[in-house]
Amino acid sequence: MIAVVRQSATQDQLDHFVSWLESKGFSTNVSRGSNETVVGLIGDTTTIDPFLLESMDIIEHVTRVSEPFKQANRKFHPADTVVDCGHGVLIGGGSFQVMAGPCSVEGDNLLAIAREVKEAGATMLRGGAFKPRTSPYANQGMGAEGLRLLHEAGTELGMPVVTEIMDARDVQLFEDMEVDVLQVGARNMQNFTLLKELGKLRRPVLLKRGMSATIDEWLMSAEYIMAGGNENVVLCERGVRTFETRTRNTFDTNAIAVAHHLSHLPVVGDPSHATGYTRYVVSAALAATAAGADGLEIEVHDRPEHAWSDGAQALTPKQFRNAMRRIELVRQAVTMEDE
Amino acid sequence: MIAVVRQSATQDQLDHFVSWLESKGFSTNVSRGSNETVVGLIGDTTTIDPFLLESMDIIEHVTRVSEPFKQANRKFHPADTVVDCGHGVLIGGGSFQVMAGPCSVEGDNLLAIAREVKEAGATMLRGGAFKPRTSPYANQGMGAEGLRLLHEAGTELGMPVVTEIMDARDVQLFEDMEVDVLQVGARNMQNFTLLKELGKLRRPVLLKRGMSATIDEWLMSAEYIMAGGNENVVLCERGVRTFETRTRNTFDTNAIAVAHHLSHLPVVGDPSHATGYTRYVVSAALAATAAGADGLEIEVHDRPEHAWSDGAQALTPKQFRNAMRRIELVRQAVTMEDE
Amino acid sequence: MIAVVRQSATQDQLDHFVSWLESKGFSTNVSRGSNETVVGLIGDTTTIDPFLLESMDIIEHVTRVSEPFKQANRKFHPADTVVDCGHGVLIGGGSFQVMAGPCSVEGDNLLAIAREVKEAGATMLRGGAFKPRTSPYANQGMGAEGLRLLHEAGTELGMPVVTEIMDARDVQLFEDMEVDVLQVGARNMQNFTLLKELGKLRRPVLLKRGMSATIDEWLMSAEYIMAGGNENVVLCERGVRTFETRTRNTFDTNAIAVAHHLSHLPVVGDPSHATGYTRYVVSAALAATAAGADGLEIEVHDRPEHAWSDGAQALTPKQFRNAMRRIELVRQAVTMEDE
Amino acid sequence: MIAVVRQSATQDQLDHFVSWLESKGFSTNVSRGSNETVVGLIGDTTTIDPFLLESMDIIEHVTRVSEPFKQANRKFHPADTVVDCGHGVLIGGGSFQVMAGPCSVEGDNLLAIAREVKEAGATMLRGGAFKPRTSPYANQGMGAEGLRLLHEAGTELGMPVVTEIMDARDVQLFEDMEVDVLQVGARNMQNFTLLKELGKLRRPVLLKRGMSATIDEWLMSAEYIMAGGNENVVLCERGVRTFETRTRNTFDTNAIAVAHHLSHLPVVGDPSHATGYTRYVVSAALAATAAGADGLEIEVHDRPEHAWSDGAQALTPKQFRNAMRRIELVRQAVTMEDE
Repeated sequence: MIAVVRQSATQDQLDHFVSWLESKGFSTNVSRGSNETVVGLIGDTTTIDPFLLESMDIIEHVTRVSEPFKQANRKFHPADTVVDCGHGVLIGGGSFQVMAGPCSVEGDNLLAIAREVKEAGATMLRGGAFKPRTSPYANQGMGAEGLRLLHEAGTELGMPVVTEIMDARDVQLFEDMEVDVLQVGARNMQNFTLLKELGKLRRPVLLKRGMSATIDEWLMSAEYIMAGGNENVVLCERGVRTFETRTRNTFDTNAIAVAHHLSHLPVVGDPSHATGYTRYVVSAALAATAAGADGLEIEVHDRPEHAWSDGAQALTPKQFRNAMRRIELVRQAVTMEDE
Repeated sequence: MIAVVRQSATQDQLDHFVSWLESKGFSTNVSRGSNETVVGLIGDTTTIDPFLLESMDIIEHVTRVSEPFKQANRKFHPADTVVDCGHGVLIGGGSFQVMAGPCSVEGDNLLAIAREVKEAGATMLRGGAFKPRTSPYANQGMGAEGLRLLHEAGTELGMPVVTEIMDARDVQLFEDMEVDVLQVGARNMQNFTLLKELGKLRRPVLLKRGMSATIDEWLMSAEYIMAGGNENVVLCERGVRTFETRTRNTFDTNAIAVAHHLSHLPVVGDPSHATGYTRYVVSAALAATAAGADGLEIEVHDRPEHAWSDGAQALTPKQFRNAMRRIELVRQAVTMEDE
Repeated sequence: MIAVVRQSATQDQLDHFVSWLESKGFSTNVSRGSNETVVGLIGDTTTIDPFLLESMDIIEHVTRVSEPFKQANRKFHPADTVVDCGHGVLIGGGSFQVMAGPCSVEGDNLLAIAREVKEAGATMLRGGAFKPRTSPYANQGMGAEGLRLLHEAGTELGMPVVTEIMDARDVQLFEDMEVDVLQVGARNMQNFTLLKELGKLRRPVLLKRGMSATIDEWLMSAEYIMAGGNENVVLCERGVRTFETRTRNTFDTNAIAVAHHLSHLPVVGDPSHATGYTRYVVSAALAATAAGADGLEIEVHDRPEHAWSDGAQALTPKQFRNAMRRIELVRQAVTMEDE
Repeated sequence: MIAVVRQSATQDQLDHFVSWLESKGFSTNVSRGSNETVVGLIGDTTTIDPFLLESMDIIEHVTRVSEPFKQANRKFHPADTVVDCGHGVLIGGGSFQVMAGPCSVEGDNLLAIAREVKEAGATMLRGGAFKPRTSPYANQGMGAEGLRLLHEAGTELGMPVVTEIMDARDVQLFEDMEVDVLQVGARNMQNFTLLKELGKLRRPVLLKRGMSATIDEWLMSAEYIMAGGNENVVLCERGVRTFETRTRNTFDTNAIAVAHHLSHLPVVGDPSHATGYTRYVVSAALAATAAGADGLEIEVHDRPEHAWSDGAQALTPKQFRNAMRRIELVRQAVTMEDE
């Protein structure tokens, strides 16, 4: 971390600042230029608040030189992480996977949808049993029974299942139901209570980016899980909130490339939530793939207009099949060799 | 809810749409104009997803006519709600209260700070015992011991205490420690698990607006608590996230007036988080008061540069005293009679 | 346009509202439901301010049913517009074009860069002669001499040139220099003075989306040009401003599909400005192509570290060649037939 | 400017970087720490693009130490600038002024409205003659005739007038019509062509903040005007664009305090555009005053529902009178002495 000291600071003020830093356990490196004095802080700066330094009268500017995340940081772990999702399905490091299924698990149609998406090329089954709903009056999901149906379908078809966990108290239930991949929704990205519990598991966690989370904050949330000992984190970009209202969210396809640059963790894209409308889902799926995603999470429903939730953004199985053919071709463009 | 049907829709398509709506339990009211056909949905539309309708081919546009929140809605409850925070301190409906204290409870200095803020005019004591920290490596707060210190100070000085709860499993602990007002932080505004637990209590909840939550979503989160039976909700505007980086957040002072227009619940402002820098806290406190807030939550620390967290935005007791004199005058401007 | 009238409105108030609308030249269509009264406005509502209606006491909500843009609207012009950019280069309606070249025209290296990009597959030459610079102290471009160099290179290589116009007073100069496509930068998207002048021309205009413009506002700016009689508008998505700082802008790849849905005009993507860093440009170019763009505008420089401007986001000719091979494959994925 | 060099950089790479910087005319100051190497750039860094440095492989991070604006910078001009608006009306440095009047100049009612606002305490008259309208089909203002009416009313009442200029070609007309203060609208904040022309004048310029402009960019636009020799710039915060749709804009009251911290220029607030609805204008006016604004610009209309534009946000003269009484009291709170 680097602090730039105002030219107007006296030597006394500078000395006082440096000894305060040293009392906090940092070594310092003071370099006086003709226009400014720069103080380098050496030591573990992950616990220091740059805002605090900036609020001091003599400080002009503070810059964090090293990212505050370590385990999620590509600098300290250059090779891509490959996450084993169960049933032999790997994600990351060149392995591209498509997770598909209904927004909500609703009952018997789950298996039929699962068969359709598998046939079209999906390798993982998604479905919500516990649903975060903006309204307390909206359907909150099937709960444990939904997990059971997912497990049944996944076992029958040999597909790992991905489903959202919202409550730290449900971790044991998800273990008992052998959920393959636990999803953390955008609204819970900074539910640190939940992240800490997931850090104690060894099952993969699909961590959605919060609606207005910076990429750094998203990686810090991954760090929470990894700091607990669970390194099986898959990041998921699902759109961020902006002023644009023609789509449910603004799909930050740039974030996929940036997350790959900063971190070794796999990154998938969720074109369903990123758009909110079926008519835009396929182009968004292709865009995420083109941007280098390691996989996609796509909502598919046999009768979207009867879906319990998010029918507006579901593909039909037929639309999904056609999308998969295009996705494969885009994936070839991404993985082709440079000359 | 109103759905505008495209001119290109056939009578068959329109009939099919209407009967689908009726199968969902709505009455309908179809009005054909020369340029468009408008279908009004009559019934409880809080559970229907406007995105779903909009995604249909024949639908041009969908408008929610009634807000999806009911108990928090001023339309159904025109009079201001006054929340009793304990120790005889009321907030809302003309009662203006200032909550002050350190960001984190750190130990013995709590009582001294509490005395200072009380003397300056604060009527409630704030302090964090459980801290949501972006980094897993940062100090996470004193926990239960912090709650005990808060209770002691509050009892000694006759001030209700406000402190953040992050984990639904801690509700009993907060009850045992007789926390007067439970704060829900911005990051947990849509932690529905936590909101539901708080709905079972009768203690007041201070509900911070999420970093990128619309005012409607904020009120829907209040609705979650109220739907559980707890009507003692105080809203807190603490700044939203935008592109501006010169302040920690962008203080949406407009939101105070809008929340008052839409809801009967009290609304307070948090100028400390809304700015992030001590030098801007007083002007932000005045702005929130001027915008009509029912109270303020302000961080005060005797030695900000040694605070465990957020020292950058703390006022010293002296700064706080001077701020209080100005706040009182602004409050007079707000409450003066029109001619 | 539809206005929902509050239940609390009296018949008198409603009558007064309706006659006020009629005095403004609208026919109305009043439909009384049990819960709300809906007033439909029939007539040209493009000139009415929905905010004004919403501010009235008896009005609950106002919805614009028809978009305020007409000539840019796909509803009234279902077929894709194909814009002829000169030298036989068409864009839109299945014709995909890549515009490449340096950010700023700097002198003799222009022709060399142009040759390189042409060889790699670019069909149009971009380069800035007049530069909008945030700082008055930064290089403002070569001006007229830059236009001359562009014209020379374009003529020599048979490539239409695209270059930015910032000043309505320069229109004649751009005509004299036979600039093929006039670019309106993001900062000037709502410089209505400039848009009106461009509406008088027949040369194509490449209209960049403003940094925080909604898609509807962007189309309204296209409408300004078209209302003047110039239908040769090409839209360009170049990233919008959000809270994310790891990239210069947030590339709204969704906007490409939405603009195609709402309008018949061609839409291209600018991955250089949308990311700001060379390392992310290729993935963003692929993402835009995958999202359905009709073309791309990419900055290429032989020695990026010596570029006058925006060297940080320039591809080298070699990087560009490799990108083009991938872009072509992605384009195949977009244009393949569904089964 | 400070560049942090990656630990992985070789001595050769570092040397090459340093000599490249020196070839650009900078002196450098290299300080090698155990974890990072910091290169300080000494010289005029206002022309260098920090993105370019950051894009280099060996560079970790670049920080601008000094703001790129100079003349607008409080560091080089600590005392508040006081701008003389004509008719003896000063703004800034303790002088607080309210500009009021209709959004659009519409004709004879101007003088009547002007009288009303003057009587209520306004000292400057605002009114639009040239209107930036999102739609080409909306009323574009009275033009020159509007300027004439403004001049007449201003002369008659001894009030300086403020009105928007959109076109660099109109500068002479505004001179001829003796417009006292030329307003630059939010959409033109980065219309550098216009800013340069205004830099040649000596008349005051009221510079509105762009819809998504950072405070630094706003000050850079002020710098454009000042760099031309015109130091009479008044900044105006009028709300920024966010995800919130319940108000027309999000009023960034923090920005008023920040602009005062960074710059010596006066800053006023525009609560009319910042909210968009009459019902929120007064609380926003008080908030801006409380935040330390040097003045306000408020839309007042005798019959808002018949206003040509923005009637939705106009106060009636009576509402304005009541607002002024509150504003004066808030102003007292701001200017009171600390103990």
